[in-house]
Amino acid sequence: MAIVQCVPNFSEGRDLEKIEKIVNPLRGKEGVKLLNYEADKNYNRLVVTVIGEPQKVKEAVFESIGIATKLIDLNNHKGQHSRFGATDVCPFIPIKDMDMNDAIKLAKELGEEVANKYKIPVFLYEQAASKPGRENLATVRKGEYEGLEEKLKDTNWSPDFGEAKKHSTAGAIAIGARRPLIAYNINLDTENIEIASKIAKTIRHSSGGYRYIKAGPVEVPERKITQVTMNLTDYTKTSMYRAFEAVKMEAKRYGVNVTGSEVVGLCPMEALVDVASYYLGLEDFSLDKVLETSLME
Amino acid sequence: MAIVQCVPNFSEGRDLEKIEKIVNPLRGKEGVKLLNYEADKNYNRLVVTVIGEPQKVKEAVFESIGIATKLIDLNNHKGQHSRFGATDVCPFIPIKDMDMNDAIKLAKELGEEVANKYKIPVFLYEQAASKPGRENLATVRKGEYEGLEEKLKDTNWSPDFGEAKKHSTAGAIAIGARRPLIAYNINLDTENIEIASKIAKTIRHSSGGYRYIKAGPVEVPERKITQVTMNLTDYTKTSMYRAFEAVKMEAKRYGVNVTGSEVVGLCPMEALVDVASYYLGLEDFSLDKVLETSLME
Repeated sequence: MAIVQCVPNFSEGRDLEKIEKIVNPLRGKEGVKLLNYEADKNYNRLVVTVIGEPQKVKEAVFESIGIATKLIDLNNHKGQHSRFGATDVCPFIPIKDMDMNDAIKLAKELGEEVANKYKIPVFLYEQAASKPGRENLATVRKGEYEGLEEKLKDTNWSPDFGEAKKHSTAGAIAIGARRPLIAYNINLDTENIEIASKIAKTIRHSSGGYRYIKAGPVEVPERKITQVTMNLTDYTKTSMYRAFEAVKMEAKRYGVNVTGSEVVGLCPMEALVDVASYYLGLEDFSLDKVLETSLME
Repeated sequence: MAIVQCVPNFSEGRDLEKIEKIVNPLRGKEGVKLLNYEADKNYNRLVVTVIGEPQKVKEAVFESIGIATKLIDLNNHKGQHSRFGATDVCPFIPIKDMDMNDAIKLAKELGEEVANKYKIPVFLYEQAASKPGRENLATVRKGEYEGLEEKLKDTNWSPDFGEAKKHSTAGAIAIGARRPLIAYNINLDTENIEIASKIAKTIRHSSGGYRYIKAGPVEVPERKITQVTMNLTDYTKTSMYRAFEAVKMEAKRYGVNVTGSEVVGLCPMEALVDVASYYLGLEDFSLDKVLETSLME
């Protein structure tokens, strides 16, 4: 059975009553499971993680978007996180028995339905992007809600679904498909943030490192350590063990040790199977040989 | 939702028609999944792996035992594998949201039902054993079908359920509860079986090694290597990485390298999580942080 993950972000991080109403359609439905939702007051943003059968997840998220469209007015919205829509972004992530193309298809279906029913202009982004310049969410969202009217006058920014006209309260929405991220931090036994920073630079894509690593330095003063904090944006191409061993290797240069690591949030089983396979030199091992995989079919 | 695995072994490895009839009750039932069945002609034995909701698995296996009782006559049974029953052994293995006590309870329920309905004497073994001397299956089965009548005269060997009287065609049955086994082989870049044998001895319980490792040497002439072949009988106490590193450490003594390893059959996710956690030094990591775990609840 195919399983998709969906992580809609809504522009409401303060009003708990509204937040509950937005999340409500994702509860108690067969084939849909609300994994987590976190509201951030400073960001004034709600991040929801839901998982389940693709069509059922899509339908439930479609309902939530409808409620967010009614409850959120971006004309009165202030927060530290950039946003251009009441439902700001909505990525689909293929988890099981489906591939990226299936997730892209789902994003397009949802996009069309959202444009038709809620009259919100929809931009497809990341793997679902219709043009190269639309892959990067930051580019798509540039100008934010306040600049949206102007942006939509540019024919380069005509939406993928819906008219080139911002919704008067809900703005626009970016719907897309992407791989699961792994948020992964590696601990260094130094308080020197410069060292963490230098190591982060060597491993991240933006400064010459691995293609699917985003990385930066973080201080953890209460533990008297620093961390290299990472997003592994495609763990099938840049594995956790590779990030770990690369940081270890670079740390040696500074006489610093890697003392451990941590996963923030959830981590796909496949990524851990890959780690175990690497260190044990496992032959012919794959997810199929994991007992639990057979429980999920 | 609780998930149990059950691995009944039947004393029929040759007659495909009978095999299909025995396996049939394990197919197409809600909450029960037939993972695998393998018949061995030399052993004249059928090993079935089924998984699912505890009560439903128990009921389905109960049906299979009934069919095996009708179809198999141990008076005419010959094979290389020792056996004392038509359904020879039937272990329950707790997989998810249940513990060993739940598996023991299930074993006892099945034992009582089998004794009542099919009039077969039942011995509880391994974790479900009622006395210390009955933990070891080999001890319980000693004397095999041919010696069963004599064995049952000994009050030390009165069955846990049913009368002290062998079933005239189906003998007896051992029902138990145990941890999942991991069948794990480690490759050595030597053809010298003596080296594999010496290493196996250092790591296995029976000759002074780890408590939950059974190990021996195997030749793999087609690859010009040998293997240390193992059963990890409790991977929560003796992890795969520990077996792997121990073999690597011992191999050094002989100038031999560990070139890889393999899992035969299925491997529980928890065992792989433990391996990944060890090598990456993961903090606060557990099955709960595996995305797929949330799919199974």
